[in-house]
Amino acid sequence: MKTTALSKLGQRTQTPPISWLMKLALDHPHLISLAAGFTDNPSLPVEETRALLNEILGSPRSRRAALQARNVRDARRPVPVAANEIYSPERMLITSGSQQLLYMLTECLCDSGDIVLVEDPTYFVYLGIVQSHDFRCRGIRLAPDGIDLSHLEQTLEALRRRGELKRVKMLYLVSYSQNPTGLTTSFAKKAGALAMLKRFERAAGHRIYLLEDAAYRELRFAGDDVASALALEGADERVIYTGTYSKPFATGVRVGFGILPEPLLKVVLRVKANHDFGTSNLLQQLLCRALASCRYERHLPELQRRYARKAATMTRAMREHFPAEVRWREPNGGLYVWARCPKPLQSGVNSRLFRSALKHDVLYVPGELCYANDPTRRKPNNEMRISFGSATEADIRTGIARLGATLHELL
Amino acid sequence: MKTTALSKLGQRTQTPPISWLMKLALDHPHLISLAAGFTDNPSLPVEETRALLNEILGSPRSRRAALQARNVRDARRPVPVAANEIYSPERMLITSGSQQLLYMLTECLCDSGDIVLVEDPTYFVYLGIVQSHDFRCRGIRLAPDGIDLSHLEQTLEALRRRGELKRVKMLYLVSYSQNPTGLTTSFAKKAGALAMLKRFERAAGHRIYLLEDAAYRELRFAGDDVASALALEGADERVIYTGTYSKPFATGVRVGFGILPEPLLKVVLRVKANHDFGTSNLLQQLLCRALASCRYERHLPELQRRYARKAATMTRAMREHFPAEVRWREPNGGLYVWARCPKPLQSGVNSRLFRSALKHDVLYVPGELCYANDPTRRKPNNEMRISFGSATEADIRTGIARLGATLHELL
Repeated sequence: MKTTALSKLGQRTQTPPISWLMKLALDHPHLISLAAGFTDNPSLPVEETRALLNEILGSPRSRRAALQARNVRDARRPVPVAANEIYSPERMLITSGSQQLLYMLTECLCDSGDIVLVEDPTYFVYLGIVQSHDFRCRGIRLAPDGIDLSHLEQTLEALRRRGELKRVKMLYLVSYSQNPTGLTTSFAKKAGALAMLKRFERAAGHRIYLLEDAAYRELRFAGDDVASALALEGADERVIYTGTYSKPFATGVRVGFGILPEPLLKVVLRVKANHDFGTSNLLQQLLCRALASCRYERHLPELQRRYARKAATMTRAMREHFPAEVRWREPNGGLYVWARCPKPLQSGVNSRLFRSALKHDVLYVPGELCYANDPTRRKPNNEMRISFGSATEADIRTGIARLGATLHELL
Repeated sequence: MKTTALSKLGQRTQTPPISWLMKLALDHPHLISLAAGFTDNPSLPVEETRALLNEILGSPRSRRAALQARNVRDARRPVPVAANEIYSPERMLITSGSQQLLYMLTECLCDSGDIVLVEDPTYFVYLGIVQSHDFRCRGIRLAPDGIDLSHLEQTLEALRRRGELKRVKMLYLVSYSQNPTGLTTSFAKKAGALAMLKRFERAAGHRIYLLEDAAYRELRFAGDDVASALALEGADERVIYTGTYSKPFATGVRVGFGILPEPLLKVVLRVKANHDFGTSNLLQQLLCRALASCRYERHLPELQRRYARKAATMTRAMREHFPAEVRWREPNGGLYVWARCPKPLQSGVNSRLFRSALKHDVLYVPGELCYANDPTRRKPNNEMRISFGSATEADIRTGIARLGATLHELL
């Protein structure tokens, strides 16, 4: 008998695009990848981490505690948020990267067929979670300051008319230097979105949560910080806030956190115990000490300077090498530039552009991967996510020149 | 609107018993807990870990790589198994403790209503995973050398007659110094079980996997190592082997591994990418170097000596303080002694024994928690899991004396 009888989830779960994009990179040894979401290598805090670990493992008070397991419920640490953002450590949870929280949260809230509202486009790995669990999505159009509130209203209204509002569980926003577009949601948009969700709750018969993913908040290098939805009235009941200590410090450390409304936190904590009992205590102690000693905070400006320089290098090269018809915005943080080709030129996985770019030894993330399967609209297929996160400045310049040459050939 | 509309999984997931057992411990400040499955504190490899991390973060070759993210597929490391156990690193996966593999594996193989065969009793946290996903269980009786093969056959035969064999996805064995009984499964029993599963596959219409959980293999302190099911013919197609680097090294590190048949590995890797992209690279590098430098291997004998001494202290105290009617076996490894009271004396959460023990400031794990919900038999309710893992030798002596006094009062 050779058949493996997979579960429905097992059958549905697909290879994440990031995996085959990485495989493409391996198959083309001279390729410059502007696709990877990895962070900048030279800025990794090697000496800080080493010093912190020596302090932890050198102190009789902490050295054994750090190597012992802890109860999942103990896993709370200070969070870097703005002063007007109210949260209590009681509502906090530490996870293996914020990715794990996205997984567990969706597991706890949604059943097959339930609906999640997402930005159009959105973080594509989240779409993989949604797809594997057979949840449905509605994409909400993005304006430069965040989602289009009238489109959100239309969408909720249409779902209400079809009797599907009871299937809507949350709105997912990547609100700071968004992956993939680099856009930052204004505070007014967060307030408008939360009020709108609240307005439709009666018809839904339950709370519709606002899930704010702040993964790129600390990677801002221009403009001012925007307060999170935690600063909104009623946030403690309706806002789920997720962040990460990995991207601003070291991705190899993989520790994220969430701040959740009480009834949901209780359930996610139970699920977390089933997943893994709690994130590695050694890593938690490392980040706890990094925060308490201010080494974490002191590391950020240098990181922001580096990303600002790399972003500037990238957009300078784009101005030099890209055809004028390709449009993009200067990012104010994060790791990505989002570029839009004129409509007839497609950028998807099977497009001439993608294949020609590969021939020119340069890789980007096709924009279509960042759009949810939403039967109410066609997926745009003329955009590219281009990352300045892990490539060196020289590679950014060469990579953009190659991509520019490819674009010129096809336009 | 105050209602949170949880998913079915969210509604089903219960507080793990370990959480409220821990809460009991906090509420009774003088309590000696013989319930916790934590490992021995003084034997944690503080100096080894510190040296390893300094090597990793001090070397120009490895320091940045360790703090950068990695693709989930890269996560393969050497495994300590016996020479005749065939596996290829290609079939290996690194997880956040072996617990995470149990979770993902069950997610990938089972749908609501599917059946998992488990030992009677078995690892109770696994039962939490099973319950939250609405899988069904059949408990297979345990003999001193592992499951009762004729009971396995009867169970499979009964399921075949009821047309339910197609719902049976795997047999879960905790095969080394089992949690909770301390029993070790003989190689003959593993061979017999695999052959039996294979025999029923045609009627099932798919492979029935043998999941061997070797979490306590390295914590053996008496007797010889038993080869794992990986040494059986056809293991590469039907055996899933899970182990952990945490218990033998440091529980605060939380890294486990699995060796899986190819078709299943592919799917679990995809699910792992959705969960968390891969376990912290820094922790993986730490264990990789611990293994390569033999510091891991050199740490084991000391650990085994300590647990042997603690187990001996516990059983010596049990002989001295327990009524003769309470029966147990000397463990050959692991962290637990499993004790059986004479039938009329119940040990469950609501029993007089459990409450009196609490009053005497000593805590054990009620045996009933370790039995799956299996409608075909009543759960035994007269057993206790008593752990010598984390308590000091003095606390073991005092704790057993208190538990003995409680037992004498009630018998």
